Amino acid sequence: MNDPTARAALVPDRHPPHLAERTVEEAQVWHGSFLSLRRDVVALPDGRRAVREYIQHPGAVMVVPVLDDGRLVLERQYRYPVRRAMIEFPAGKLDPGESAFACAERELREETGYQADEWARAGVLHPAIGYADEFIEIWFARRLQAGERALDDGERLDVLAVPPDELLQAVCAGEVTDGKTLAALLWWQNVASGAWPLAWRAAAQWRAMAPAAQEAVP
Amino acid sequence: MNDPTARAALVPDRHPPHLAERTVEEAQVWHGSFLSLRRDVVALPDGRRAVREYIQHPGAVMVVPVLDDGRLVLERQYRYPVRRAMIEFPAGKLDPGESAFACAERELREETGYQADEWARAGVLHPAIGYADEFIEIWFARRLQAGERALDDGERLDVLAVPPDELLQAVCAGEVTDGKTLAALLWWQNVASGAWPLAWRAAAQWRAMAPAAQEAVP
Repeated sequence: MNDPTARAALVPDRHPPHLAERTVEEAQVWHGSFLSLRRDVVALPDGRRAVREYIQHPGAVMVVPVLDDGRLVLERQYRYPVRRAMIEFPAGKLDPGESAFACAERELREETGYQADEWARAGVLHPAIGYADEFIEIWFARRLQAGERALDDGERLDVLAVPPDELLQAVCAGEVTDGKTLAALLWWQNVASGAWPLAWRAAAQWRAMAPAAQEAVP
Repeated sequence: MNDPTARAALVPDRHPPHLAERTVEEAQVWHGSFLSLRRDVVALPDGRRAVREYIQHPGAVMVVPVLDDGRLVLERQYRYPVRRAMIEFPAGKLDPGESAFACAERELREETGYQADEWARAGVLHPAIGYADEFIEIWFARRLQAGERALDDGERLDVLAVPPDELLQAVCAGEVTDGKTLAALLWWQNVASGAWPLAWRAAAQWRAMAPAAQEAVP
């Protein structure tokens, strides 16, 4: 969104020869109900071998839903791995063949009941680069209308509408610690200040767009 | 750091009865060179059973190193799971029995060569609450002196000093996508603006403190 030519790129090459690792062997070593685990052997830049273990993930989408009065829609959900209820923006995994926009619209409606007239694709984050290939697309939604939720079987969550200042205070106080939600708040704060402009489009426009075209916006 | 009594807590109870899940069975189903995988059976609030699979992680520390001229010290490192070089703040896993501060000081010195006279504990983030119990403590370091690196065998990374505005532009442009680094930038931005004050202490003071006392600061 900013002009990348105005400064030196921080990652001029995704595979710099002095850092890049090359796949030598690959194996799926575990496949459970939800997680798949890979164990690959790689060649380091000096030719030596090393083992890399990581979770294979289909990718996900997170939505930052902004109500007309400025409050943000969030969820309170029990997250068993960390043994506590967490505050987080709505998010969910991509279904096979699903576009990021379709996933964003579906997850927002299913989990919170809200539908949005206008959407913008902000960016992407990688939550656990040491041990997962997961990416999370970050989308903003506005012009929201409340409706009925349709939770998955066994899914339980509270829906909250929180003023942004209160949410930021809760981060500072250590009450909100979900990584993707903190990354989304960095986006929200810079969008709200005008530093990072978003390309808003009508939902119908996004729906008509092929996934590759979605990724090329703006 | 803010007065939590000034607003309603977003997570009044870590284990709200209508959301909390209770462990019924637990099993370690895979133990590799780096990752351990758990597969637990839980009881949902309505008594039904569900399976929860997740990575067990020792926890980690990330450092936001601020040079006297305001630039931030970052690393460029190849991350095989996402198949690209990533820009990130220095971070590393806790060794058994190691305090968060000792880990922060060690990782900063080993990976970048820098030592810091003053440190502050900002907060914590949970990077992948759907499938990992990992937490990452966020520490700030200032009054930095450059020195010699001591990389682990096979560890390869570039050290960069980047003006914050340039780093934020790179996030907006989609070049910096590491989740923990975006969360750290949310902290940096609010610390820099004065909204979130930090409790800076001399390195020697932190070193003399027991881990439980570190966690109680401020």
